Amino acid sequence: METTNVKAYGTVAADAALKQMNIERRNITAKDIEIEILYCGVCHSDLHTARNDWENTIYPAVPGHEIVGKVTKVGNEVTKLKVGDFAAVGCLVDSCKTCDNCKQDLEQYCSNGWVGTYNGEDKHLGGMTFGGYSEKIVVDEAYVLKVPANLDLAATAPLLCAGITTWSPLRHWKVGKGSKVAVVGLGGLGHMAIKLAKGLGAEVTLFSRSANKEKDAFELGADAVIISTDENQMSAASGKFDLIIDTVPYVHDVNPYVGTLNTNGTLVLVGYLGGLEPILNTVPMIMGRKSVAGSLIGGIAETQEMLDFCGEHNIVSEIEIIKIQDINEAYERMLKSDVRYRFVIDMASLKS
Amino acid sequence: METTNVKAYGTVAADAALKQMNIERRNITAKDIEIEILYCGVCHSDLHTARNDWENTIYPAVPGHEIVGKVTKVGNEVTKLKVGDFAAVGCLVDSCKTCDNCKQDLEQYCSNGWVGTYNGEDKHLGGMTFGGYSEKIVVDEAYVLKVPANLDLAATAPLLCAGITTWSPLRHWKVGKGSKVAVVGLGGLGHMAIKLAKGLGAEVTLFSRSANKEKDAFELGADAVIISTDENQMSAASGKFDLIIDTVPYVHDVNPYVGTLNTNGTLVLVGYLGGLEPILNTVPMIMGRKSVAGSLIGGIAETQEMLDFCGEHNIVSEIEIIKIQDINEAYERMLKSDVRYRFVIDMASLKS
Repeated sequence: METTNVKAYGTVAADAALKQMNIERRNITAKDIEIEILYCGVCHSDLHTARNDWENTIYPAVPGHEIVGKVTKVGNEVTKLKVGDFAAVGCLVDSCKTCDNCKQDLEQYCSNGWVGTYNGEDKHLGGMTFGGYSEKIVVDEAYVLKVPANLDLAATAPLLCAGITTWSPLRHWKVGKGSKVAVVGLGGLGHMAIKLAKGLGAEVTLFSRSANKEKDAFELGADAVIISTDENQMSAASGKFDLIIDTVPYVHDVNPYVGTLNTNGTLVLVGYLGGLEPILNTVPMIMGRKSVAGSLIGGIAETQEMLDFCGEHNIVSEIEIIKIQDINEAYERMLKSDVRYRFVIDMASLKS
Repeated sequence: METTNVKAYGTVAADAALKQMNIERRNITAKDIEIEILYCGVCHSDLHTARNDWENTIYPAVPGHEIVGKVTKVGNEVTKLKVGDFAAVGCLVDSCKTCDNCKQDLEQYCSNGWVGTYNGEDKHLGGMTFGGYSEKIVVDEAYVLKVPANLDLAATAPLLCAGITTWSPLRHWKVGKGSKVAVVGLGGLGHMAIKLAKGLGAEVTLFSRSANKEKDAFELGADAVIISTDENQMSAASGKFDLIIDTVPYVHDVNPYVGTLNTNGTLVLVGYLGGLEPILNTVPMIMGRKSVAGSLIGGIAETQEMLDFCGEHNIVSEIEIIKIQDINEAYERMLKSDVRYRFVIDMASLKS
């Protein structure tokens, strides 16, 4: 297969800094779209992959799955976009297209395994896929999204992961006008959860461990903030919420939040992969038909739906633009939650 | 308030055997129905309450919440039943009728606290309610059920708890033709879950720890049995079920069962109140949008729906009839799971 050599930023080992490197992109096939990457959001998963936190990284690794850019080439069977259009790519670039889940637009749950935008098994070139910290990317049009014309391009990038990860559960659990939604954690995912739930007409509450995020939460659209370390505030919220989107990425006690679910309510975990400690108590779950669930990003159709919704409601991420050369420092700041609320790389910096 | 003294069988202490005693029943008010109890099923909760296992028993305690009998008196505003009709009473005999849940026929989740058929706060007489191990019971018609004429009365009694406890999640999670349902545990609840899921048109699998329940499971209508201690059988069932009804009443590892849920599947706990140990792993939940939930008995309208369904499909419990004088021995046998699948007391024995 013909390939083109492009500049990228990646790492060769868990303990190495990210640096400039060159990677191969396939030349477009009939169904492919080549995109010049203009902006790429920086997700916690990028850092986890770069540092092999999940012990599944194959090096060299080029992170980045919140990609916005401009179409530079299209294959002769492509109908979705044309050269010059703005385009976006999220967390997945391939799936089997034939399993029950793929047929239901649930590519993120592909029974035969979807292909991640980075560190996924590249079906075209062999080896692993390389993500958005690069000049260009070539993607099957089935996995490419259209970007609403009115949105700021850089601030749109985080919608492709942080946005869809919170949108999908909001839609699956049918949040709308009158729904009472709570969000646990105010980071990249949490701030999008507030904006999107609010956009859908819900009454939105932020659970935060400290009072210093209150002002931001209200500015983002939250109707209320509950300090989760304040037992009085927590008891006052007992039985209140229809859906809680828990974005916390590390192990934490979900039992106090389950207590704030209404009958038939669901707490959905979107950030934490691991064992639930302290142990989950079934008593309030049984006594109120409550659920604890998980949810993973979203399918392609649902991602487009989210982008279109954001276009209509003028919703984008709160971002801080960085140069690619500052990515290692940005990772250190992310580890300290020192970002409001998402870093986005201006990929023009890779050309300099 | 005027009362009538009736014979009952109960206990005065956690470590005392059940024995005959006398209790007071209120004389009927305008909305009340007095029922001569003909049969009363024996539920694990009866034993837990008699022995104060949940540390909330107020003595004397008279268990029994799977009640079938004949109407002997009705208040002058009663419209649901008339003297001579067969009637049934389940786990709850009162609720606030005004909260959002009560208004939605979800009395079992009454926000102001529903009143259990026994060991609940009796709003009429003060003190605690006394259950079905007695000659008669007086209940607000709103909490009395009609018994389909074609069903065996004794075998109908367990539908009032074991039946509705498994019916409610089957209906809430929309089980029907083509649904793939699994049942964990083959006891009073489990055997009803198989019959009811099968009646709804589902493909039904029993998870059992040992092969010796296979024959019974097939006779009850199960399409398949998976030995849960057999890793090969468990892996073969990976991603298979839409709904798992977990009836196991003691702490157990639910993680292997979560692995057998399909995308969007739910494991609903109906038997175990306590902490989930070993700890619940969120990875498969997130990777497949799976839920772990709880469910408690059912509302009155839903209980009537279940009874009517059982009438139409000729579904009753598998029972062993005992005399009230054998209740202490029956409890010992229940503790050893030595019952197929529910004891039912012939209350005529209380008269002798």
